[in-house]
Amino acid sequence: MTPVSFRSDNVAGVAPEILAAIGAANGGTAPSYGTDPLTAQLQERFGQLFETKVRVAPVATGTAANALSLSLLAGPYGAVMCSATAHINDSECGAGEFFTGGAKLVTLASRHGKLQPDALEHALATAGIGMTHRVQPQLLSVTEGTERGTLYQLDELRELFAIAKRFGLRIHMDGARFANALAALRCSPAELTWKLGVDVLSFGATKNGAMCTDAVVVFDPGLFDELGFRARRAGQVFSKMRFLSAQLLAYVEGGLWLRLADNANATAARLARGLEALSGVTLVDPVEINEVFATMPPGMIEGLKAAGMGFHDRGGGHIRAVTAFDTTEEQVDAFLAAAARHAD
Amino acid sequence: MTPVSFRSDNVAGVAPEILAAIGAANGGTAPSYGTDPLTAQLQERFGQLFETKVRVAPVATGTAANALSLSLLAGPYGAVMCSATAHINDSECGAGEFFTGGAKLVTLASRHGKLQPDALEHALATAGIGMTHRVQPQLLSVTEGTERGTLYQLDELRELFAIAKRFGLRIHMDGARFANALAALRCSPAELTWKLGVDVLSFGATKNGAMCTDAVVVFDPGLFDELGFRARRAGQVFSKMRFLSAQLLAYVEGGLWLRLADNANATAARLARGLEALSGVTLVDPVEINEVFATMPPGMIEGLKAAGMGFHDRGGGHIRAVTAFDTTEEQVDAFLAAAARHAD
Amino acid sequence: MTPVSFRSDNVAGVAPEILAAIGAANGGTAPSYGTDPLTAQLQERFGQLFETKVRVAPVATGTAANALSLSLLAGPYGAVMCSATAHINDSECGAGEFFTGGAKLVTLASRHGKLQPDALEHALATAGIGMTHRVQPQLLSVTEGTERGTLYQLDELRELFAIAKRFGLRIHMDGARFANALAALRCSPAELTWKLGVDVLSFGATKNGAMCTDAVVVFDPGLFDELGFRARRAGQVFSKMRFLSAQLLAYVEGGLWLRLADNANATAARLARGLEALSGVTLVDPVEINEVFATMPPGMIEGLKAAGMGFHDRGGGHIRAVTAFDTTEEQVDAFLAAAARHAD
Amino acid sequence: MTPVSFRSDNVAGVAPEILAAIGAANGGTAPSYGTDPLTAQLQERFGQLFETKVRVAPVATGTAANALSLSLLAGPYGAVMCSATAHINDSECGAGEFFTGGAKLVTLASRHGKLQPDALEHALATAGIGMTHRVQPQLLSVTEGTERGTLYQLDELRELFAIAKRFGLRIHMDGARFANALAALRCSPAELTWKLGVDVLSFGATKNGAMCTDAVVVFDPGLFDELGFRARRAGQVFSKMRFLSAQLLAYVEGGLWLRLADNANATAARLARGLEALSGVTLVDPVEINEVFATMPPGMIEGLKAAGMGFHDRGGGHIRAVTAFDTTEEQVDAFLAAAARHAD
Repeated sequence: MTPVSFRSDNVAGVAPEILAAIGAANGGTAPSYGTDPLTAQLQERFGQLFETKVRVAPVATGTAANALSLSLLAGPYGAVMCSATAHINDSECGAGEFFTGGAKLVTLASRHGKLQPDALEHALATAGIGMTHRVQPQLLSVTEGTERGTLYQLDELRELFAIAKRFGLRIHMDGARFANALAALRCSPAELTWKLGVDVLSFGATKNGAMCTDAVVVFDPGLFDELGFRARRAGQVFSKMRFLSAQLLAYVEGGLWLRLADNANATAARLARGLEALSGVTLVDPVEINEVFATMPPGMIEGLKAAGMGFHDRGGGHIRAVTAFDTTEEQVDAFLAAAARHAD
Repeated sequence: MTPVSFRSDNVAGVAPEILAAIGAANGGTAPSYGTDPLTAQLQERFGQLFETKVRVAPVATGTAANALSLSLLAGPYGAVMCSATAHINDSECGAGEFFTGGAKLVTLASRHGKLQPDALEHALATAGIGMTHRVQPQLLSVTEGTERGTLYQLDELRELFAIAKRFGLRIHMDGARFANALAALRCSPAELTWKLGVDVLSFGATKNGAMCTDAVVVFDPGLFDELGFRARRAGQVFSKMRFLSAQLLAYVEGGLWLRLADNANATAARLARGLEALSGVTLVDPVEINEVFATMPPGMIEGLKAAGMGFHDRGGGHIRAVTAFDTTEEQVDAFLAAAARHAD
Repeated sequence: MTPVSFRSDNVAGVAPEILAAIGAANGGTAPSYGTDPLTAQLQERFGQLFETKVRVAPVATGTAANALSLSLLAGPYGAVMCSATAHINDSECGAGEFFTGGAKLVTLASRHGKLQPDALEHALATAGIGMTHRVQPQLLSVTEGTERGTLYQLDELRELFAIAKRFGLRIHMDGARFANALAALRCSPAELTWKLGVDVLSFGATKNGAMCTDAVVVFDPGLFDELGFRARRAGQVFSKMRFLSAQLLAYVEGGLWLRLADNANATAARLARGLEALSGVTLVDPVEINEVFATMPPGMIEGLKAAGMGFHDRGGGHIRAVTAFDTTEEQVDAFLAAAARHAD
Repeated sequence: MTPVSFRSDNVAGVAPEILAAIGAANGGTAPSYGTDPLTAQLQERFGQLFETKVRVAPVATGTAANALSLSLLAGPYGAVMCSATAHINDSECGAGEFFTGGAKLVTLASRHGKLQPDALEHALATAGIGMTHRVQPQLLSVTEGTERGTLYQLDELRELFAIAKRFGLRIHMDGARFANALAALRCSPAELTWKLGVDVLSFGATKNGAMCTDAVVVFDPGLFDELGFRARRAGQVFSKMRFLSAQLLAYVEGGLWLRLADNANATAARLARGLEALSGVTLVDPVEINEVFATMPPGMIEGLKAAGMGFHDRGGGHIRAVTAFDTTEEQVDAFLAAAARHAD
């Protein structure tokens, strides 16, 4: 068994199928900067996947995906409404502010990482829309599945988006764990995105088995060209783009992405069940995708560390453990066994 | 023989040694966002390579390398002095302006892609340094080897940098083809960079066999931390950084990078010699690295296209042909043979 | 009696002494863009006033003063710590984000518009200083007197600044009502600014009798030059600068600014005393400068409006009334009489 | 006679009618931030003046007018085509780059400060429109009258604008000396602007007798709201806006602006005639508004300085002399007499 690290899903490597696709893409020359056949194929393939015409721009990081998305939807005097726990707000070093030319991220209280309709309604109703001394709400950004390992149900998104649309906002979805959400919700990519009103999606792949490859997926044809220029200007158009497109094609081929996500979700569920059975452990948030947030006794935290178990010690007795596409039940059980040795 | 495409060196794939390194990096988990062992090793290795302490930030594109470099050295009211033919000026969709917060690229006339000392001296002397209504020259950016396939000799750089330093400017080197330059000049990385006064280097690897991986190399310790934040904010810090660091380590291991560049340079020289022997063909710029700029009769251009030879038709009888790390003599000779069939 | 408008102190006109100074400055020609004698004199005069060498840049709005100040002290990946009620946060349409190139304003809870030391300490301790995925706290911005009509005592500022300095932050003071604060605190300009550690001051004058003229006052000589360039680039260097400098000179001449502020403060105090004596009226915040925040019955609000009394109806029974440099006791008493007619 | 300073038209003071209007605006309170009656009146008045619905935003500097205008018409990956001699390019410290979020100013050769149709056509035809690695031409900016004291005839503008429109560009006119141009061309404001296709006009007033007051005039209703937010965010919305609006109303009242401009133009013409009659003096550019560019012998330049005559010594025997709204024939003749004493 390889060492257990549940610190994040991004400590994992690359899925074998995706690595193979990289190798297969390496024969001969190919036109550069996205004019290659694989990138053309990617556009088609994602069009089928999402059941509508889309523009896909492969990017090298989730931060780039988010920041580019924001810049397509929020102008320099705009406000982006998001949860205080949103990755764009607290973990991207201000990339959103940078790419938008200084839009303001307005953070709202959330419950288990999920925006609450009444808070959104109140914020928009008091935002001073039309008043020039206030930044103007232009965009709602939701993360699905959330940074707290939870899920918005489709109806919950529908309600939030209805409020946002009523105030004239556009919609961005941070899908860093989009596959995990989709796998858990058992709905189609279209149902979780544009059919609800999503304008632009940050399509995560890196956390779920790709190698430094995520994507911006744009549903609004009016933004297709702008995406190209903004990505180029941001240093996110790759001369050897085929190597990113090949990954994304392999990622969705034959449902690989959902199988990988299923594994991450299932092992997280196993971990959650095991942990909450331990005396002294409490799950802080519902475990709906592949992240487990829990409190545990100090001794258990120290014991896990001593046993070489990787996880995120968030301080104050709080931990986060994230499973990945390649996490095994054996690893989960090893983690649980180590924890059990230090249960009260 | 695989089809001949000399359109650019970025139409090539990935060198086998580098692809192997990616695969080798894929075992087990690794800390994310550059805290992994390979990235630590990269810092050490490049320190040895450059014979001084450096900070290396792997990035996914040459544009990102350049734009980040500029942002470290030029402030929002700064001017960046560069050649009108500089990639930062005419091929990066304004990334430099974006990352610097609106610095101005001031373009100077060049000869064969090389800045001329008198033009630089004149521009700086008349730039209105200290006058608040003028943008302030803060940075000289040179490309080595140049976008026109030529090289600055060390003495030429020394002269330019002396002028720049006299006016208080800092120095950036766009080394998109740094290996090609180094291989041709037969000097050390240190001699071509910080020993001459270079503050920040865009270290190219993608054009010479890497997969979407270049780097910013900073020589000024005062900028080390800022590099980290700016890269993060630009979406250029990778959760699975090990896959970029592994490439850069493999790239320089045992002198691979110079061997790859030697091949590109040598095949370009062979191509240049063959072309200039043909009636009606004239080399427009000295061929000092791996790019050939030439004029040729319309019939030859059409004939090459008809023969399936890839190159860049620049219009008006001008062509650019670029060889790569894996170009073969056989490919060059096939190109020459096709051209010869259409010589006057 | 002219109509009573306590909607804001910026609905007032220009003090006669300042209008006269504008007229006096109008004789003949003067060098442009701040090279005129009055602007030179302004530097000297403010140096005396603040008992240290300063650089003063007259600007046309308080927003410009604030945004320029922020841009001198917070970089593009920086965080500016401020109260959620700060003018820079909620009333300047994102000017701070614009001028800094996308710094993030991190808002803290406040009490009566005043930042609390424990909240600041906690925010900084958990801000992830040194972690590249977090924006980096670089600046504390306080408003003195506050947007809620209250004052920080010198000791309170000292405590906040000590915390900020301990974490490496610099200090900005938004002095939109600096004269009102100074007049109330009875301390010297130096004591309220650089002696406490303020690096840059937004020096308000417009609200207290000037005509579209405020200033940035920089105490750190290392920022003097940058101020000039940033102001020029922001369209805040005036070809006919003498007309702004003349106002600022007249404003402080013979203590005019403090006399004007005294009047505003005194009339606000009179208004507050009168209001709180009315049944159904409660002062929401201590009235320490020239702003009165109160709750009152709906009938009183409507009655005041019907009587032609100007004030800011903030909704939900909350009102704001602001007195100015030229407010008369007669006006205050008229307002109070109208209110009294609708008291319970 | 007051001293003679022809260094610039911005060394002059304020026209008496405009100063009086400032004083007249000072009675009582007025709603702030542009909601006052004078600012409403300004919108109406300029609508009549331009014979179409416009939105006027008073601003404090010409640089602010230009930079705001550019930001309305050119996006962050845009290119602004302008003359190398354009004020936006060489005299505004990069304000255009700042306000647009990093658009690129692409400078074209000009003759006597005027863009040439063939140069514009060539630049646009080779700009790589639609290619993501190139900034995209979005805006043509012309200065009327030019920085070299010349005028585009209406037909010349029509030709330039037709080219620009054919390539999809929008049109900005820097009218820092709009009144001088209008007075010389004897056409209507509408004929010189929107009827030719101008989208946004920088309406200069300061150089022609106003006090730190220019304006952005927008003809495209689709940009009206954005102007308000961008101006606010740039610190160019004044709490006491009435004092700027009053000036602009007085400026155009009864044709004052054209009378003032006529005087400047006429005295410049007188100066030009006198100078070119002197041995050793050559006019470098046609004198079509109120600026005279000439070469003269070193002795004459020194002699003028010794005589206390103000002008701009541009080096190498080149001088610029600019007359103003209040320049007298007596002053011109004094200047000419001093020059004559040093003619060959």
